[in-house]
Amino acid sequence: MGNKKQRIAMMCALLAKNPNKLYSLNYFQEMFGAAKSSLSEDASVVKQAFCDAGIGRVETVAGARGGIRYVPHMPAQAQERFKQELARKMSDTSRILPGGYMFLVDLFCTPYYVDGMAQIIAEWFMDKKADFIVTVETKGVPLAMSVARILNLPLAIARRESKLTDGSVVSINYLSGSSRRLQTMSLSKRLIREGGRALVIDDFIGGGGTIKAISDMLGEFHISVVGTGAAIVNRYPQKKRISDYKTIFVLEELSETKIEFST
Amino acid sequence: MGNKKQRIAMMCALLAKNPNKLYSLNYFQEMFGAAKSSLSEDASVVKQAFCDAGIGRVETVAGARGGIRYVPHMPAQAQERFKQELARKMSDTSRILPGGYMFLVDLFCTPYYVDGMAQIIAEWFMDKKADFIVTVETKGVPLAMSVARILNLPLAIARRESKLTDGSVVSINYLSGSSRRLQTMSLSKRLIREGGRALVIDDFIGGGGTIKAISDMLGEFHISVVGTGAAIVNRYPQKKRISDYKTIFVLEELSETKIEFST
Repeated sequence: MGNKKQRIAMMCALLAKNPNKLYSLNYFQEMFGAAKSSLSEDASVVKQAFCDAGIGRVETVAGARGGIRYVPHMPAQAQERFKQELARKMSDTSRILPGGYMFLVDLFCTPYYVDGMAQIIAEWFMDKKADFIVTVETKGVPLAMSVARILNLPLAIARRESKLTDGSVVSINYLSGSSRRLQTMSLSKRLIREGGRALVIDDFIGGGGTIKAISDMLGEFHISVVGTGAAIVNRYPQKKRISDYKTIFVLEELSETKIEFST
Repeated sequence: MGNKKQRIAMMCALLAKNPNKLYSLNYFQEMFGAAKSSLSEDASVVKQAFCDAGIGRVETVAGARGGIRYVPHMPAQAQERFKQELARKMSDTSRILPGGYMFLVDLFCTPYYVDGMAQIIAEWFMDKKADFIVTVETKGVPLAMSVARILNLPLAIARRESKLTDGSVVSINYLSGSSRRLQTMSLSKRLIREGGRALVIDDFIGGGGTIKAISDMLGEFHISVVGTGAAIVNRYPQKKRISDYKTIFVLEELSETKIEFST
């Protein structure tokens, strides 16, 4: 295990596999039985490699509880290519469903697309010091979980109907912005901590009513929403019930013959 | 980019980041501008490193459409440690809820635990040549998505109530084994392909009624279930409505004062 190439390779693999997980130098020392000075050298090769591969940076955290961790990043050009590719796929007219709906579920459950979107969203909020991610079941769960994985944070899923396995819950009733229908949403109390910092992630924002309801619900526990990210936001209604959100795609048009996104 | 250490480091990082994704040697050739013979040498260092790191193997796929891919693996000892740690966490009596329920949602939404369980489950079915993963909303979705990510397969989520965004669906009514309550489940037709091979993943198996309903529903499309995996199975009822499944944990006892799992 003393071989330098081998050590570097192993460090790269471990870091890449576990984004935002902090590995102490002690951990690698025990694993390789190498001197700290060699490991520091190895770490700089690793850093350069991640940078050259265009997949993010390896950060050093100083101090007794410090170490190195992998902070994923997708370069602007790769993001642009990915967005174009996905927008093209989403704009296929075969995805138009009767009644002004569209079929996108397959893409929101395919690891390549989910992880790509999650990476873009995660980067917006990398420095927000969030404690956890919140989403509402069901379509947005894979996306939110992938963001949670990249940021190495727990996920809390709000449900439409609470279950006995949720324990005691906090609930909210609200009017869904688009359908003007009364909706309910519940979140297990055990998943949230008074005064925490939440990131709200969803697949689609229509009128913003659902996201607003989440924020209101969290607000009762003095939890601040430090960011809201969605894959798609509908251009209409232009007046949303929330103002501060980021999105990858804007749904510009959805008719019986055309579906169009801008990025 | 001609530096050997750098090439190896980058290959490791890319492979580890994208399990079961096939990278052609051409891909690396274009990236590094190195000769095929050097790349083959690099690949053997990479293979050894993954093996030494105990995180899986790098496989070579021969032929014109061939290349190398990373097949994740968790060594038996690490699996055992992980299972013990998680079983201990799950057995905390503070997780006991009134009415014979238990609170585990937090663990099934924390990337470290989800990915660990998913890794163990994915390994059971690595060679089953599945085309896609199926699960039922909601608690099992993060686990199923993580299995999908490791196997690089799409996920199909069956819903309790179908939505307009699902397009046309196939539905089934069934009796839930434990509660003897009539349940409905729907799956978007667009997510499944006649004659395909499915892996069914869920967080918890009680009487097995839900899993049986999924299999029946898929059977109507001549889709064969090539494997069924769950994180937890309840010891009772001992007679399940399905016979062929694998599980990480068995819930041995759940009373008002005790919660116990075996592995």
